[in-house]
Amino acid sequence: MTGGVAQELLDGWQSGNVLAADCPSRGILSHLTNRWGTLVMVALATGPHRFAELRRKVGGVSERMLSQTLKDLEADGFVLRTAHQVVPPHVDYELTALGQEAAAHVVALVGWIEGALARIVAGRAALAAE
Amino acid sequence: MTGGVAQELLDGWQSGNVLAADCPSRGILSHLTNRWGTLVMVALATGPHRFAELRRKVGGVSERMLSQTLKDLEADGFVLRTAHQVVPPHVDYELTALGQEAAAHVVALVGWIEGALARIVAGRAALAAE
Repeated sequence: MTGGVAQELLDGWQSGNVLAADCPSRGILSHLTNRWGTLVMVALATGPHRFAELRRKVGGVSERMLSQTLKDLEADGFVLRTAHQVVPPHVDYELTALGQEAAAHVVALVGWIEGALARIVAGRAALAAE
Repeated sequence: MTGGVAQELLDGWQSGNVLAADCPSRGILSHLTNRWGTLVMVALATGPHRFAELRRKVGGVSERMLSQTLKDLEADGFVLRTAHQVVPPHVDYELTALGQEAAAHVVALVGWIEGALARIVAGRAALAAE
């Protein structure tokens, strides 16, 4: 049954093609690269976090957007949510093995931007002054 | 003057930090990872394209969104727009050296998603069936 659903979704997409409007990879790309998805992956790449920790770390995210972002990443199999039955109860979020593979690429892209920022900003100012 | 603007923007951000809400890297990340920005970078990574070629290649993009996406990527210094004064006139878009560096990371992420798609979709179906 499960194999059937996956097979049906993958029908004709043995490997994905994001340039095609109807490829299922588009949705996954969107979860990994939408504003909060990217930042949550970057934060989780450093280790497991509780919800409140993530919210503090990812500057500007609302409780609602963080919750939705984590749900999407969990549904894609990138994030594991573990509820600890202790007093007081708490919930941890961490990357799965698949999520760690994805995060490596997200972190590489973000790391490049952070490192190239001075060059990018200087170039932008030069273009704007032309 | 130009250096002054860049310096002002970079003040306190010798290297960027995307997790900080007010870091200028956030805007650049958004241009590279919003839906059409990512796909245009992937398409341009294969070489220069005319507008109509890009529009055909990036499935589902509207003329307006493609135009805005190219403007953002051009302003960041990732894309070079060249108008050829021939009959009929035409315009080419290609990656700059900086854009090629950025595209390498975008292509790596997208390539990983495309290659992992079968695993991701199967895992998603299994989670949904739990």
